[in-house]
Amino acid sequence: METLFSPPLQHWLDIAGIFVFAVSGALLAVRRNFDVFGIAVLAEVTGLGGGLFRDVVIGAVPPAAFTDLGYFLTPLVATVLVFFLHPEVERINKAVSVFDAAGLGLFCVTGTLKAHEFGLSLTSSVVMGLATAAGGGVLRDVLANEVPSLLRWDREIYAVPAIVGSSAVALLIHLDAVRPETAVGAALLAFVLRLLALRYNWRAPRAWKRSSATADTEAAGGTDNAPTHG
Amino acid sequence: METLFSPPLQHWLDIAGIFVFAVSGALLAVRRNFDVFGIAVLAEVTGLGGGLFRDVVIGAVPPAAFTDLGYFLTPLVATVLVFFLHPEVERINKAVSVFDAAGLGLFCVTGTLKAHEFGLSLTSSVVMGLATAAGGGVLRDVLANEVPSLLRWDREIYAVPAIVGSSAVALLIHLDAVRPETAVGAALLAFVLRLLALRYNWRAPRAWKRSSATADTEAAGGTDNAPTHG
Amino acid sequence: METLFSPPLQHWLDIAGIFVFAVSGALLAVRRNFDVFGIAVLAEVTGLGGGLFRDVVIGAVPPAAFTDLGYFLTPLVATVLVFFLHPEVERINKAVSVFDAAGLGLFCVTGTLKAHEFGLSLTSSVVMGLATAAGGGVLRDVLANEVPSLLRWDREIYAVPAIVGSSAVALLIHLDAVRPETAVGAALLAFVLRLLALRYNWRAPRAWKRSSATADTEAAGGTDNAPTHG
Repeated sequence: METLFSPPLQHWLDIAGIFVFAVSGALLAVRRNFDVFGIAVLAEVTGLGGGLFRDVVIGAVPPAAFTDLGYFLTPLVATVLVFFLHPEVERINKAVSVFDAAGLGLFCVTGTLKAHEFGLSLTSSVVMGLATAAGGGVLRDVLANEVPSLLRWDREIYAVPAIVGSSAVALLIHLDAVRPETAVGAALLAFVLRLLALRYNWRAPRAWKRSSATADTEAAGGTDNAPTHG
Repeated sequence: METLFSPPLQHWLDIAGIFVFAVSGALLAVRRNFDVFGIAVLAEVTGLGGGLFRDVVIGAVPPAAFTDLGYFLTPLVATVLVFFLHPEVERINKAVSVFDAAGLGLFCVTGTLKAHEFGLSLTSSVVMGLATAAGGGVLRDVLANEVPSLLRWDREIYAVPAIVGSSAVALLIHLDAVRPETAVGAALLAFVLRLLALRYNWRAPRAWKRSSATADTEAAGGTDNAPTHG
Repeated sequence: METLFSPPLQHWLDIAGIFVFAVSGALLAVRRNFDVFGIAVLAEVTGLGGGLFRDVVIGAVPPAAFTDLGYFLTPLVATVLVFFLHPEVERINKAVSVFDAAGLGLFCVTGTLKAHEFGLSLTSSVVMGLATAAGGGVLRDVLANEVPSLLRWDREIYAVPAIVGSSAVALLIHLDAVRPETAVGAALLAFVLRLLALRYNWRAPRAWKRSSATADTEAAGGTDNAPTHG
């Protein structure tokens, strides 16, 4: 990975991905009424969490999040921006979604490549690509005490674009065809799929019978806080 | 551990444990109305989370969850099953509890053995056995935004059977008596204790005075979302 | 770090820090009505979680939490104490806050030193100092299904004292002036700042416009469970 793109390009792509993810964390923190440190913590966790999880799992310690000062400072920039300009940032929420989709595309590619570099199989590398792209958002939602958006049926699909992008990278590795232009192609594939999902409200099905029958009784013996659906 | 049971047996026991845990994760996801990817993520996390936590903590990276394709695929099988058959699976909820208890028994044994193999003391290995058996369920509940069942006083005891099973393994290690039949004995001990807890609704006490006095005022200065009890 | 203080002193300072953090975890568990095992788990997680996170991230595995029996037993002592005496402990809640502030001071110092010892940069070591001091509390709140107190604007600042203490240590490292008396000074600095924050209700600002304008509309397109403020 170190040599896939020229180091400055790779670095700036990473920084861009971290930044847009951090903005999404900071915005949620503002909505939840957190203080400025809460905003910074949620920005850091969202921006760096996916890569941190990947690095700890594959044994790449200390993680990149702690060895590159720029990685750490980027979410703080996002914090300052959102702290002062959150109404404006909310207004360009669609632009944020586009950036977030770009982060998704980039992170699933770099996550898959790095996991494979550390000796994981292709399948496991795909899973790590998904975890890198989606992990920060899951940690963000857990810390904000919300059900992770990744898991909810009423949100546009996020996992599919990441899995498709990661799988495309795995295919490239298998074909020994990993080059900057093909890797960018895989990232673009995930990016465009995510944009289409947002544009056309693509949602994944809920469990069989559950998505159609509104009279369906909530699962017997289930938890008492299952949301009603309809 | 590699040589405790014949590798195929060990592998199939692991797969069975992962499967039943994954089913419990998938069922919770259906109750919470998650989409199919949410179901798969919760199945994976519940089935593999305990072992993943153990492996990261003891330094066994990349974790087994990422080096054995079967470990990864098993929760997906559970996802497909629950996706289509969740009403039927709910109906055999008792059977699921029995399988879950079997997973508990197996995982506390293998968790304790693996931790000791990686150089942890006997006490720490017991803790790791408990973490292996209970960790997946805790992660499942955290992701579903629920209070972990492990911690709740209104659920049958889960920690005690796991601690007893893990401690039995520690005793076997201490006595240099770890053999397939004794390890299975320890797993059975945890399994039977858990079944008895479910059958006779064994619950652990809450804090002194809290379990008896219903007129007890909720702790002054406490959180405002403490549940009422009575 | 091993040689900064005489080993027994360092060990007892650590034990004291773990103990007071564990008490805060056990008290929250009692308020949430958990059973005795839930209390023990929350005490362990709160007392050891910050250090565990740090050790896993910097690659110091198995973590100190699993190699020192005293570290593991201390939260159990806190559990027994709180189990029987929780009304009395609640009554001396202020004393608990003082101890907790002492734990904060100590952990941010030892966390920063240990991270630097494992090769992290000064900035990253400061972040690790904060994570060591605050991590256990965040895990405690996540497991109890609450918004982490660290992030909430209506709680006295916790991050600032930890960051100041950690930064003081980084400065000492930079000046090659880490000695028992200077390290204690840094811990005292964090400790006193936290006490002042508690005494004078120092709170950090929320996002711009949000802290002043009560008529501010909740962020458009935001989550539906954002708390009202006013």
